[in-house]
Amino acid sequence: MPKNDMTLVEKANRYGTPMYVYDGDELKDHYDRIMSWLHQSAEVFFSFKANGNLSIASLLRSFGAGIEVASVGELLMAVKAGYSPQHIIFSGPGKRKEEIDTAIQHQIYCIIAESKEELTYIAESAKQQGKQVSVGIRINPESIESRAKIKMGGVPSPFGIDESKLGEVFDLFQAYEDTLLFKGIHMYLGTQVLDETSLLSSFEYTLNTAVRIKNEYGLTCQMVDLGGGFGIPYFQHETPLHAERLFQDVAEMIQAYESELDFPRFIIEMGRFLLAECGVYLTAIQYVKNSKGEPFLIADGGMHHHQAMTFRGRLLRNNYPMRLIKHSNQPVDVVKQTIVGPLCTPEDLIGRQVELPQGEPGDLLCIEKSGAYGLCYSPTLFLGHSSPLELLLFEGDDYIIRDRGHPEDLLLKQNMPFFKQRRVECETD
Amino acid sequence: MPKNDMTLVEKANRYGTPMYVYDGDELKDHYDRIMSWLHQSAEVFFSFKANGNLSIASLLRSFGAGIEVASVGELLMAVKAGYSPQHIIFSGPGKRKEEIDTAIQHQIYCIIAESKEELTYIAESAKQQGKQVSVGIRINPESIESRAKIKMGGVPSPFGIDESKLGEVFDLFQAYEDTLLFKGIHMYLGTQVLDETSLLSSFEYTLNTAVRIKNEYGLTCQMVDLGGGFGIPYFQHETPLHAERLFQDVAEMIQAYESELDFPRFIIEMGRFLLAECGVYLTAIQYVKNSKGEPFLIADGGMHHHQAMTFRGRLLRNNYPMRLIKHSNQPVDVVKQTIVGPLCTPEDLIGRQVELPQGEPGDLLCIEKSGAYGLCYSPTLFLGHSSPLELLLFEGDDYIIRDRGHPEDLLLKQNMPFFKQRRVECETD
Repeated sequence: MPKNDMTLVEKANRYGTPMYVYDGDELKDHYDRIMSWLHQSAEVFFSFKANGNLSIASLLRSFGAGIEVASVGELLMAVKAGYSPQHIIFSGPGKRKEEIDTAIQHQIYCIIAESKEELTYIAESAKQQGKQVSVGIRINPESIESRAKIKMGGVPSPFGIDESKLGEVFDLFQAYEDTLLFKGIHMYLGTQVLDETSLLSSFEYTLNTAVRIKNEYGLTCQMVDLGGGFGIPYFQHETPLHAERLFQDVAEMIQAYESELDFPRFIIEMGRFLLAECGVYLTAIQYVKNSKGEPFLIADGGMHHHQAMTFRGRLLRNNYPMRLIKHSNQPVDVVKQTIVGPLCTPEDLIGRQVELPQGEPGDLLCIEKSGAYGLCYSPTLFLGHSSPLELLLFEGDDYIIRDRGHPEDLLLKQNMPFFKQRRVECETD
Repeated sequence: MPKNDMTLVEKANRYGTPMYVYDGDELKDHYDRIMSWLHQSAEVFFSFKANGNLSIASLLRSFGAGIEVASVGELLMAVKAGYSPQHIIFSGPGKRKEEIDTAIQHQIYCIIAESKEELTYIAESAKQQGKQVSVGIRINPESIESRAKIKMGGVPSPFGIDESKLGEVFDLFQAYEDTLLFKGIHMYLGTQVLDETSLLSSFEYTLNTAVRIKNEYGLTCQMVDLGGGFGIPYFQHETPLHAERLFQDVAEMIQAYESELDFPRFIIEMGRFLLAECGVYLTAIQYVKNSKGEPFLIADGGMHHHQAMTFRGRLLRNNYPMRLIKHSNQPVDVVKQTIVGPLCTPEDLIGRQVELPQGEPGDLLCIEKSGAYGLCYSPTLFLGHSSPLELLLFEGDDYIIRDRGHPEDLLLKQNMPFFKQRRVECETD
């Protein structure tokens, strides 16, 4: 959680609301702790999709992270943020041909192919460019008998190549041996997983798959991308992962396999787990009203900036973790209040019947765990509000890493209207 | 539905995919038909939130529509699109003070106040600016006995002012009589309503409320905003409104009230009903793959451009209306196929087990009814893909009303990273 309430109030006063605030120091500590538990047996690659801010990516690079991109836009931003090609991998089930061409030009560490069709195009593009290209393959597992004896995976998926088709894939590598360099494998078995056993099972399955590829096909993985999926608790019924034990277990597991696998590069992807708890979204209460006996707080920020907090895609409509920072020290009662954003739609619901100190205009609402899947996951154009400022606090300095938006931004790429002259009726008013 | 398949293929070939295509001629016909049924007894105000494109707004202005904005960004775009102040109303439960100040400066037709607190601020701001301001009030109805004898409304809401508090509101108008001009009332009782009786009941309730305000408070409404809520059918079980009969009924109802109400301006708001069926989203199939016996089509467009099609916020996960336009004339079987977009997330699901002609790369997927709540409702920054082109076809001309985005757009408002120099480890690869 970035800094304390006093700091947040100070920043809100200085920069205005709504705003995202990231705690770079906490992020650094968090990253360093994870790396110390992993004992350098693996590298952490930041999943760029979790937060599209250039400076956050740049900061993570400065700590030593690699990056996983999933579009050419992310690829070019990663380069801008200081990632060298060797620290970039490119995944995604629907890469456009131009995106593949660009990734080959940049000679990134590897492109993760998700289908035979894509692999063929990668090879043809590289040939055309007179280049060799490093390619990993994402595998959709046949079925995983977990450590807890529960079967996972095994479902049809648009992601990755069915494990049963590995032979055909390696035939393709053979057919294009002058062009395609087999770099290794990638598996990713779930998101927001809060069960250590499931995570360890999936990593073990990936490691065993790498062993099997070596034994059955004689191919050595130079990279084994274990994926990620490390969850964080958002709601009361969720228990956090025991990170220290988990990452130490991961390190031990990797060490048990690394010699048999000829010491490949082990990659762990991390987006939400890395960032979510290092960022908050701050929005000020503008109006307090009472409708038919029920109190409503109306904030200046909402779903256009932070869709995830408004129940997006969740069947269980729990309230996101949040706290109200009062602007005065007067003691007030804790009461159930419904909090909405400024949008003209019932979907802009920040929290329903949340137990919080009685709100007043000027109070600051702090939406916690908002460092990942915040702004980038939100319909920023909806209803024409400006995008929020993003502030990074790091080593005693404030960095405005995204300026507050302006109404003019809405005109981006829009062409001027053509239809003014067609108006015929008279202005009578 | 814009034009025929041949036209869509031609446009996709010329401008590329993914793309939104709007049929301006169909929009004009649709608008004109609605107006002919209403017999000029009411004005249609476009709800800008349904589609944030400047040129669409401008085109609608050229047909004679007014506009309902809900942020200062929308207000400024409306002015740019050619709306005179007299054709602009401004609603929304959480207007910021600067937004109210700007609306007063522009002397728009009226600001719709949604709380007593807001009304007070409007008055104070106008006083400060030495101006009078026209204000309507949105009313949250006590409870509506519908024509079908079903009670509606009556729930606590962040929108509008409880009907039971009208007296207090009019006291405020009294207190600020030199500043606040009471313009009228606004009620909006539901969205995506497909039942004519409910719509008519809500309009009748609004009209009766205007009568009651006249009788009880001696205040004449110069404007009665009936709201909207006209639905369109997206899914098989939904029946379209009988528009002709409905709007003729609305016209008759208005005519029955207009003399008693001293001939106010009657406003009907329309977003989805006006636009949804005049636009499509076109995306090309890039890859076809089979996973464990199930066919997947992977398109070049997805939820970052058109979130509504990916089940957002719907408990019933029906498929959006769509058709596949084959690029060859070879007859193929109709089979169940799952269609996904290019994003690295299972949420980017366009359709599940949709019965369509067997897809191949190069086929064009046409997502129908996409003229409203398309691009503006989508997390355009998510995963760093460029925004789609928007094309308007009107009177034989093609208008590119939004240029295709570019990866550089992602950098908008972002400041350059500061952290390059902090990297200490060596590049070993």
